[in-house]
Amino acid sequence: MQTYPSKLLELAVNELAKLPGIGRKTALRMALHLLKRNLADVEALGTSVIKMRSEIIYCTECRNISDQELCAICANPRRDRSVICVVEDIRDVMAIENTGQYSGVYHVLGGIISPMNGIGPNELHIDTLINRLPGGVKEIILALPTTIEGDTTNFYLFRKFAGFNLVLTTIARGISIGDELEHTDEVTLGRSILNRTPYESVIKNK
Amino acid sequence: MQTYPSKLLELAVNELAKLPGIGRKTALRMALHLLKRNLADVEALGTSVIKMRSEIIYCTECRNISDQELCAICANPRRDRSVICVVEDIRDVMAIENTGQYSGVYHVLGGIISPMNGIGPNELHIDTLINRLPGGVKEIILALPTTIEGDTTNFYLFRKFAGFNLVLTTIARGISIGDELEHTDEVTLGRSILNRTPYESVIKNK
Repeated sequence: MQTYPSKLLELAVNELAKLPGIGRKTALRMALHLLKRNLADVEALGTSVIKMRSEIIYCTECRNISDQELCAICANPRRDRSVICVVEDIRDVMAIENTGQYSGVYHVLGGIISPMNGIGPNELHIDTLINRLPGGVKEIILALPTTIEGDTTNFYLFRKFAGFNLVLTTIARGISIGDELEHTDEVTLGRSILNRTPYESVIKNK
Repeated sequence: MQTYPSKLLELAVNELAKLPGIGRKTALRMALHLLKRNLADVEALGTSVIKMRSEIIYCTECRNISDQELCAICANPRRDRSVICVVEDIRDVMAIENTGQYSGVYHVLGGIISPMNGIGPNELHIDTLINRLPGGVKEIILALPTTIEGDTTNFYLFRKFAGFNLVLTTIARGISIGDELEHTDEVTLGRSILNRTPYESVIKNK
């Protein structure tokens, strides 16, 4: 067991080591780095994480992280509110927004159904999604991971949506642009043949 | 450029990304992890780093990190104050202390001479080291890195020590215990032959 020359240092290392992917050695390197920085810089770090945790709110509509009651996407009148893209967490929203290809709105589940990790449907924002459906929603795009948990969640949602008059789609899975066929795994390649796209729509989207 | 759904999140990511070795993706993962933790946990992290930076002091004797004016090592009456081990930073103190093999005291330079990085002798705690010498110091152990910068610093100190009646040593460099000769680099192997150790002293130290 490492002994630290200072209780204050040890305490900071203990806290930093609780961050994901950070071991005690890295935490010590971070703490010593912070000791060399200005007090104002360290205060900026410390207060920014506390302020974020205490003041951030979640959009009442889509459960995205937000500074207001409605997030910037839900509050934007130019977004198509008849299409909802269902994602696992806010990183997926950020990734899709970065493409600039999507003009609908989102719904952040906050996770996926995973009995192994004790996450059932009640831990996710599914009820709030169902509540949004009567508001003129025409299409739901499922953009969850292609894992057993993702498939389970997709199927759970599929059954929940029964009775609503809407189109249910999933984002296209296939070979990445620029990838070669011989280096693609069989499952992806097989699915890309089964779910082949009419060439006309490819030209149109160019 | 990534757009964040919340200014508070963006600010926290910006600050976390200033930590050494942390890119923006990792910083975002950390921030989202913190959002899932209790407010009390996040406050513990934030305040621990601020408190460490603002309250930690450096031992007036050896410049080690400390909670008191004299660090625990310098304040310990059982430590041999006639032997000073000179190290680059406090991680070296912690590493040597962990061996349980050293009963002298330390002096933390706070770096090594590195003109490339704009670090000259005046940026290091060399004057405070020289001031300690008249207090009955008999031996200085140089435990700096075996780099050009380390060698430069060693030589600078060697000249500064001229006129003081003391033994100057460096920690032994050689083949790690358990390592095989054929896998050892030539410089280390060559030096381990030049600086060979009398067998009697090996038996004695067993």
